[in-house]
Amino acid sequence: MFVLGVDPGLTRCGYGCVSSNKGRPVAIAAGVITTDTKLDTPTRLLLLSNEIEELLINLKPNVVVVEKVFFQTNARTAIAVAQAAGIVLISAMKHKAEVVEYTSNEVKQAIAGYGSAKKHQMQSMVKHILKLSTTPSPPDVADALGLALCHLTLMKQNTKVAYHQSSIDSNGQKDHYLKPKPK
Amino acid sequence: MFVLGVDPGLTRCGYGCVSSNKGRPVAIAAGVITTDTKLDTPTRLLLLSNEIEELLINLKPNVVVVEKVFFQTNARTAIAVAQAAGIVLISAMKHKAEVVEYTSNEVKQAIAGYGSAKKHQMQSMVKHILKLSTTPSPPDVADALGLALCHLTLMKQNTKVAYHQSSIDSNGQKDHYLKPKPK
Repeated sequence: MFVLGVDPGLTRCGYGCVSSNKGRPVAIAAGVITTDTKLDTPTRLLLLSNEIEELLINLKPNVVVVEKVFFQTNARTAIAVAQAAGIVLISAMKHKAEVVEYTSNEVKQAIAGYGSAKKHQMQSMVKHILKLSTTPSPPDVADALGLALCHLTLMKQNTKVAYHQSSIDSNGQKDHYLKPKPK
Repeated sequence: MFVLGVDPGLTRCGYGCVSSNKGRPVAIAAGVITTDTKLDTPTRLLLLSNEIEELLINLKPNVVVVEKVFFQTNARTAIAVAQAAGIVLISAMKHKAEVVEYTSNEVKQAIAGYGSAKKHQMQSMVKHILKLSTTPSPPDVADALGLALCHLTLMKQNTKVAYHQSSIDSNGQKDHYLKPKPK
């Protein structure tokens, strides 16, 4: 199974693809998509959309895990991040991938053991879990790999993931689309 | 020339298409796209994206005018609106339409004469300008038609609009992509 984590952003959008090889996570691809801050927003969104499309075509992930956007102190950044996240979400939906969202705290909790882990701690933990020779950098790349790892971890913990395509019946607000397995 | 105004939103997304017939604005189509609040966000974004795509295919607007998203007091709403706006922006870019953004205040100023006009005042003004038999409702529809009208008004006022597709050279931050005509 291929899981693509995406840390959305317009200036820097991290991505990291992890496969689960007999339960052991293996990093397949990771990087950061950047767009020129001098360009206007629609052009930057289009460039990001094209890059994400290419990733989805090349990597064919079964699951796309996107960091859930929360209000930030910087208005301009929050809006750009939300716009970028929206584009990643529909691209993944169009490619029929399962789409999952986790908050930054959920990922930190799953990977580093506590929700307020620092960026460099997340980078170290991701490097360690994936047995990488170098530290994933910039932090956006580690965050994206962390999102994929978080999903693989939570999947193992007896949690059934609801598929988007089949959840359109909708019975109430689902948070990051995880349903506990019926006992 | 067909101008499609879009007041982005996930619960209600207003749209209004106005053509310029010998300088006189004529309403071509208007309505509101709604998505079920019980569905998860990625599904709602995909449904919105599909509807917007259909509008672009059917109406073939030369220009798509989108309300510029600003920070709002409600975090959840602001993020949903930004995600919706992002999707409208790239859909328009992909359809090679010219893409323009105006703030709500700019539209109110252009249509009602002052930036803090109330919703019902905007509805009345849009009805009056477009000589409609009924008041455009909900307000999202009036806002969308107002965005299209605002663009047609500002175009007349000696303002040259820069095309996105050709502005990728980028020399500095452009606000809503309008360049004054060289004197």
